[in-house]
Amino acid sequence: MKKKKKRFPFYQENFSRWYTEVITKADLADYAPVRGCMVFKPYGFSLWENVQQELDRMIKSLGVKNAYFPLFIPYSFLKREKKHVKGFSPELAIVSFGGGKKLKEPLVVRPTSETIIYEMFSRWIHSYRDLPFLINQWCNVVRWEKRTYLFLRTTEFLWQEGHTAHATEKEAKTFALKALKIYQQLDEKILAIPVIGGKKSESEKFAGGQETYTLEALMPDGKALQCNTSHFLGQNFSRVFDISFQNKRGEKEYVWQTCWGTSTRILGALIMTHGDEDGLIFPPRIAPIQVVIVPIFEKGITKEIFSFAEKIFQELKKEGIRIVFDKRKEYTPGWKFNDWELKGIPLRIEIGKKERMKKTLTLRRRDTNKRIEIRAREAKKEIPLILERIQKFLHRRAKKRVKENTFFPKNYREFREIMREKRGLLWAFWCGNPKCERKIKEQTKATTRLLPFNARKEKGKCIFCSQPANYRWLFAQAY
Amino acid sequence: MKKKKKRFPFYQENFSRWYTEVITKADLADYAPVRGCMVFKPYGFSLWENVQQELDRMIKSLGVKNAYFPLFIPYSFLKREKKHVKGFSPELAIVSFGGGKKLKEPLVVRPTSETIIYEMFSRWIHSYRDLPFLINQWCNVVRWEKRTYLFLRTTEFLWQEGHTAHATEKEAKTFALKALKIYQQLDEKILAIPVIGGKKSESEKFAGGQETYTLEALMPDGKALQCNTSHFLGQNFSRVFDISFQNKRGEKEYVWQTCWGTSTRILGALIMTHGDEDGLIFPPRIAPIQVVIVPIFEKGITKEIFSFAEKIFQELKKEGIRIVFDKRKEYTPGWKFNDWELKGIPLRIEIGKKERMKKTLTLRRRDTNKRIEIRAREAKKEIPLILERIQKFLHRRAKKRVKENTFFPKNYREFREIMREKRGLLWAFWCGNPKCERKIKEQTKATTRLLPFNARKEKGKCIFCSQPANYRWLFAQAY
Repeated sequence: MKKKKKRFPFYQENFSRWYTEVITKADLADYAPVRGCMVFKPYGFSLWENVQQELDRMIKSLGVKNAYFPLFIPYSFLKREKKHVKGFSPELAIVSFGGGKKLKEPLVVRPTSETIIYEMFSRWIHSYRDLPFLINQWCNVVRWEKRTYLFLRTTEFLWQEGHTAHATEKEAKTFALKALKIYQQLDEKILAIPVIGGKKSESEKFAGGQETYTLEALMPDGKALQCNTSHFLGQNFSRVFDISFQNKRGEKEYVWQTCWGTSTRILGALIMTHGDEDGLIFPPRIAPIQVVIVPIFEKGITKEIFSFAEKIFQELKKEGIRIVFDKRKEYTPGWKFNDWELKGIPLRIEIGKKERMKKTLTLRRRDTNKRIEIRAREAKKEIPLILERIQKFLHRRAKKRVKENTFFPKNYREFREIMREKRGLLWAFWCGNPKCERKIKEQTKATTRLLPFNARKEKGKCIFCSQPANYRWLFAQAY
Repeated sequence: MKKKKKRFPFYQENFSRWYTEVITKADLADYAPVRGCMVFKPYGFSLWENVQQELDRMIKSLGVKNAYFPLFIPYSFLKREKKHVKGFSPELAIVSFGGGKKLKEPLVVRPTSETIIYEMFSRWIHSYRDLPFLINQWCNVVRWEKRTYLFLRTTEFLWQEGHTAHATEKEAKTFALKALKIYQQLDEKILAIPVIGGKKSESEKFAGGQETYTLEALMPDGKALQCNTSHFLGQNFSRVFDISFQNKRGEKEYVWQTCWGTSTRILGALIMTHGDEDGLIFPPRIAPIQVVIVPIFEKGITKEIFSFAEKIFQELKKEGIRIVFDKRKEYTPGWKFNDWELKGIPLRIEIGKKERMKKTLTLRRRDTNKRIEIRAREAKKEIPLILERIQKFLHRRAKKRVKENTFFPKNYREFREIMREKRGLLWAFWCGNPKCERKIKEQTKATTRLLPFNARKEKGKCIFCSQPANYRWLFAQAY
C-alpha cells in the first residue's frame, strides 16, 4: 500500500500547534469572540455529554444527589474563608450592575461554589440524622484568563463539583478518596488515560482546604496534566460558615467536609493522549461515533451495495453501537476516510463490490491502522469485541508511553537536563521545604505534582538541597 | 375512615401561599442569599433532570445537536438588533471587572443567546450544504428580577434554547412549529399539563423575532402560564449578523431562523397544575419517585414483613420503576404517609402483617386517594398499569378544570366581571389594535395570550372598542 501523506506532519515537533489545529479542524470547538472563552461545537460537546453520562452514573452510585446553586455569589461570602478568597481573587469576574442599577454589593460569578453551597448547608444541616449530606452540581464556572487554550484554559468552563458534609473526620477523608476512585475509573476505563494518584504539596493544594488528592496524567509532549482533584476540607469551612449538627449525645459539632471536581479540561487530556499525525483518536467507550460505514459505490450495483450497507448499519445500531452510515454523494470514499480519521472514529467499515459479493466487511482500526476482514453475519458479534480491543490497546499504548517517559534522576543536574531536553515524569526526593520546591519551579518550570498514596519510605536526599528526605515526589512541568 | 386534617387548608383561598409553602416544605427548592435567586434542592432538581432527559431525547429526534456557547456576551453584540436589545436591556446583569481590572467593553451575562450564537453561525455557515443548521444548548441565563417567585420568576434560571438556520422561509416556519409540537408532547404526555397553542400578538412576541408561537396552560388560581415558546425569526438576525449562504445557483442568500425554549419555569406549572391540600402530586412519568413502600412493622414478625417488602421492592426496581423502600425506624407509618403525600409520590404501597400473610399489597393512589388491594405476585404487571392510569387521570382532571374555567364573555362588562371574580381563560373578539389590548391590560390585568392556530374566522366585534373583529383571542391574567 502506498504510504499516505500525514495530515499533521508537525505532530512531534510542534505538539501545541497540532493540538489547536486538530480541535478546530475536527470541529470539536472554536474560539469565541469573548476573550478567554471558547465554543463547544456539537462534536466536542457530545464528548462532554458522554463524560457526564458516565460520571453522573458513578457519582449517583455513591449516594450523591444533584442540585443547583446560584451562579452569583455575594463578594462578602467569598471573603469569609481567607485562604480561599486569596486563592481566587485574581481570577474573579464581577457583576456590578444589575437591572439597570449599580449594585450595593458586587456579585462574583462563581469561580467555584464552596461559599454559596456551604451557606446553604448551614441552613439545612442540623442533626446527625442529616448526615452525610452529599451534593453534586453540574455547572459553568468562571476564572479570568487572558489567553485561551482550548479545553485546558478558558475563562468559562463546565464541570461538576461535589460537596459533602460528614459527622467524622475519618468518614470525610474516606469519602474524598472514594470520589477520587470514581475519577480514576472514568480516566482509565472510559477515557483510557493512565493516571497516577496521590496527595498535593502544601503550596499546590486547594485554597482553603486541608488536603488535596489528585490524578495526574502525562501528555505526549512530556507535560503533566491534572485530570481530577478531590479535597478533604477538614472543618475549615464548617467553622467559618457555622455548619454544625447535634450529635447523638446532643452536643454541637462542626461537620467535616469534602469537595471534588472534574471539568471539561479532561477533554484536553483525552485529545492529547490518543491523537496522532492523522488527527484524533477516541477510545470507543467515549467516542461520540464508534463506527462509520463508508460505502464504495460502483456503477451498476450502487443500489445493491447501499442496501447491503444499510442492513449492516441497522443491525449494529440496534445493538446500541454509536454508528454513522456516511451516505454523502458529494465526497469520494478517500475523502471520507481522511475525514473520519481526522475525527478519530475508532473503527471504519468499508463496503464495496467485493464485500457485497462475498458477504464480508472490510474493517479498518483507527488506532493501529490494521485491516480486518470479517463475515457480514458475524458483525454483530465481532465488532463489539474489536471495539473493546481498541479500547484496551489505546490504554496500553498510553501506559507504555508514560513508562518510557518516567525517570529517576540521580541528582539535580540530571533532573534539570531531563526537564530541559525531554521533560516527562520525574521521581525525585524532596525534603518538604517549600523553598526547594519554589527554586526548582523557578529553574526548571517543574512543580511537585504529588506524593503517591502508596509512597514507600526510603532514606534519600532532597534533589535540590541534599538534606535528608524520606519520599520521592512526582515532579513535572504541567499544563 | 376518619377524615384526615389537611396540611394546607388554605389551598383554595391563598394559592400563592400554598405554592411557596409546598415547595419549601417538600424540599424542592429554597431561597438563595442572592436577591432574585433560588436553590434547586435535590428533589426539585431531579424533576428538572427528568424534564431534560425526556426533552433532550425529543429535541435530538428532530436532528438537533447540543452545543455550548459562552455565558458572557459583549454588550456591542446585543446592541446590533435594536428591538432585541430594547427588550432585554432593563433585565441585564453586567460584568465590568475581570481578573482584577476594569473591562474596556462590559460583558453581559446572557439573558438569552441569540447574539453570541448567531455571531458564530455567521462564521460557520457558508453554503446551502451547511443547512439546515440545528443547534440546542442547555444552560443558565440571567434576567434581573427584584422579587423571587420560586421556579416562575428568578434572576437566574435554567433552560434549553434551540437555534436553527434554514435555506427557506417555509422550512424555518415549519421547524418552529415542529419545536412547539415536541413541547406540547412534553407538556401533555409527560407533565400531564393541558396546553393551548397559538400565536402571540405583536406586543407580546419575542423581541427581535417575527412571530412567536406559544403554549399556554391555566393554573388553578385562574391565571395563565406560558409554558414554552418557539419563535420564527425571519431574516431579522441573519441580516444583522450576516448569516448568509451560497445557494445552489451560487447566489448569496440570508438564512431564515428559529429559536425556541423551555425553562425551569415549567416546573412551576407542573407543581401548580396537580397539587392539592395535602401537598404535591406528580404525574408518574415525571415523578422522581413513582412508588414508595411503607412497611408497617409489628412486633414478632418485623423481619418477615421486612423481607417480604424487600422482595417486592427489588422486583419493581428491576422493572425500571423509580421506587423507594422507606425503612426508616425513627418515624411512624402515619408520619411517613403524610411525608410522602406532601412530596407527591403517585403511589404508595403499604405492607404489614395482613399483607404479608395474605400475600397481597395495599396500594394508595395519591391522586384519588383510592385504596386498592392486589395480589403480590401481580405487582409487576399491575403497578405499571396503575401508574399509567394515574398519569391519565391527572391529565383528565386538569383538562376538566380548564374547561370549567374557560369563558366566552359577551361584552366588556362581563369580561371585566369574570376577570375580577374568578379569572380563567377568556375567549374574546379583538380588533387587533394595540391600543385596545393595552387598555384591557390596564383595566383588567389580562393580556392577549394567543390567537389559536386553528382560529375560525367569524364576524364579531372587538370586546373593547366594538370595531369589527374576525377572531377570538385568548385573554387571561398571566404569571
